[in-house]
Amino acid sequence: MKKKLSDQLSEKIIINSLLKKLNFNKKGTFNFENDAAYLSLDKNYKTIVTTDSITENIDFFYNDPPESVAHKLVCVNLSDLSAMGSAPVAYTLNLSFNAKININWLKRFTKRLFKLQKKHNFYLLGGDISKSSELTFSANFFGKAKLKNILSQNKCSVGDDIWITGNLGNSYLGYRIFTNSKIKVSNKDAEFYKNSYLYPSPCMFGSIASNFISAATDISDGFYGDLNKILNNKVGASLIKKDFLISNNLRKIIITNKSEIFIDDILSWGDDYQLVFTSNKKFKNKINNLAKKNNIKLTNIGTIIKDKGIYDDSMSLIKNLSSYDHFS
Amino acid sequence: MKKKLSDQLSEKIIINSLLKKLNFNKKGTFNFENDAAYLSLDKNYKTIVTTDSITENIDFFYNDPPESVAHKLVCVNLSDLSAMGSAPVAYTLNLSFNAKININWLKRFTKRLFKLQKKHNFYLLGGDISKSSELTFSANFFGKAKLKNILSQNKCSVGDDIWITGNLGNSYLGYRIFTNSKIKVSNKDAEFYKNSYLYPSPCMFGSIASNFISAATDISDGFYGDLNKILNNKVGASLIKKDFLISNNLRKIIITNKSEIFIDDILSWGDDYQLVFTSNKKFKNKINNLAKKNNIKLTNIGTIIKDKGIYDDSMSLIKNLSSYDHFS
Repeated sequence: MKKKLSDQLSEKIIINSLLKKLNFNKKGTFNFENDAAYLSLDKNYKTIVTTDSITENIDFFYNDPPESVAHKLVCVNLSDLSAMGSAPVAYTLNLSFNAKININWLKRFTKRLFKLQKKHNFYLLGGDISKSSELTFSANFFGKAKLKNILSQNKCSVGDDIWITGNLGNSYLGYRIFTNSKIKVSNKDAEFYKNSYLYPSPCMFGSIASNFISAATDISDGFYGDLNKILNNKVGASLIKKDFLISNNLRKIIITNKSEIFIDDILSWGDDYQLVFTSNKKFKNKINNLAKKNNIKLTNIGTIIKDKGIYDDSMSLIKNLSSYDHFS
Repeated sequence: MKKKLSDQLSEKIIINSLLKKLNFNKKGTFNFENDAAYLSLDKNYKTIVTTDSITENIDFFYNDPPESVAHKLVCVNLSDLSAMGSAPVAYTLNLSFNAKININWLKRFTKRLFKLQKKHNFYLLGGDISKSSELTFSANFFGKAKLKNILSQNKCSVGDDIWITGNLGNSYLGYRIFTNSKIKVSNKDAEFYKNSYLYPSPCMFGSIASNFISAATDISDGFYGDLNKILNNKVGASLIKKDFLISNNLRKIIITNKSEIFIDDILSWGDDYQLVFTSNKKFKNKINNLAKKNNIKLTNIGTIIKDKGIYDDSMSLIKNLSSYDHFS
């Protein structure tokens, strides 16, 4: 395959000066000097595989900080691993870009990858660089989990508690602040929510608590749609109180901006990369203790019920269930 | 992540009507209804990982048959697995496309993937679909190999035989016929070489003969450059006869078109996805017998020598060693 980026920025330079730092000297990567790499897992573990791409003008914008692009690429994949009950081990990268991207951009991008690799303990196995008019970054992530701990989206039972991690909507508000000058927030809040949008942090509770979880998915396509995947057209959900899903501060901001921000829009938006999961009621204490120990905010938001559909606290059906479909 | 393709072609339709056929009902894929998938290998095997993208206007053109695009995507990855001494097990797909691609295009594309999966015995684990102005298709392939059989590019020894599989240049000539009307070939030959360009077939000899191979790589970046990876700036190669690398028929066509086609261009071009590998002389018969048994054309093209560089049959240094660098 003939692939040239530019004279200044050859694949060799990118690999040798930037990417080789990301293989953490793992033997199976052959220091990126082979046709492929190998992945070595303890024989008691299964290799969990997930892949997600982020594309310019859809998932990020060219002017976004390179650190943000790195964050999003890692985050979209790590939250899928977490939802499967697995911890990350390694990943491969497919970078498609063009002369708009210079070595400084790539330096900042790979430096942030390095930081995230250190934080979540995974390394780069290899990858592929190609030229394209639009920026597209894909990653394949490999996690590990014991077979009995692999989580599914659709194995909840009637009576299970429904939980979410963190707060929803922070990323949504950040995006709205970027794109709409009418929204009234303090400078400090503007900073906080814009950062939530630019630097999403995946919740890795899935691998921590997999022994006690019956079904899980990450909230990447919108709360309603993602909860719907768990219900799988077989059972329903009764939610304790819809506004438990968002922080007190966001609730106040909604009141100040009531003609601009609507809770239903927040709950149809993804990109917070929190988890929604179900758990047998008998594990309530165990789940709460694990969250506390790992400094993770956890809210019991409702119960799985026999009647199909999602109901609010007055047991009226919440309409407009919509979500973007997606491919694993 | 918000991703909509078009009203006619949602991800759900693509997944349910086209891609689900490709998971071969393997348990670990969760029928594409989970956040990720798991890969299950016998405990004696390592998971070999490789990834390669193909991009519109670089690796293929929009008007190419969809079957050709599927072939190229599979081929670029399978030849890397083969060069590592491994056989394919499964893969993930990242498809970035736009409204130019309709359901019929995707049907033909996935039908060919199905055929190649059957032929080489691998299945689809999952993937990701996104929208982009340029078509980019990435795949991550997973192979298996016992640790002792994993091949490296750079573990040859002085005295080893150098071998190539198949013939080089068929894909190059096909590309030239497509883009240059001055080239004189019979209709039958034109058909043959155009098909070699559109439907490359990876040589899977690496996993078959890994016990007897000391170093291997696939010829994807040009013969000289790829052989150079094996030499690794430590040893050299003495080639028996340069034109052994191409078929008798191609040699005749070069003579007829001597102002248009040059053997050095052929040898700097990749895309044949054959293998170049080295092997201890004592395995010569074993290697030959394995190739015969598997109906693979094999040519002993030279020997690894102490002197660095690539020499022709009169021991003069072949100049203009150039290759495109690449990332694993």
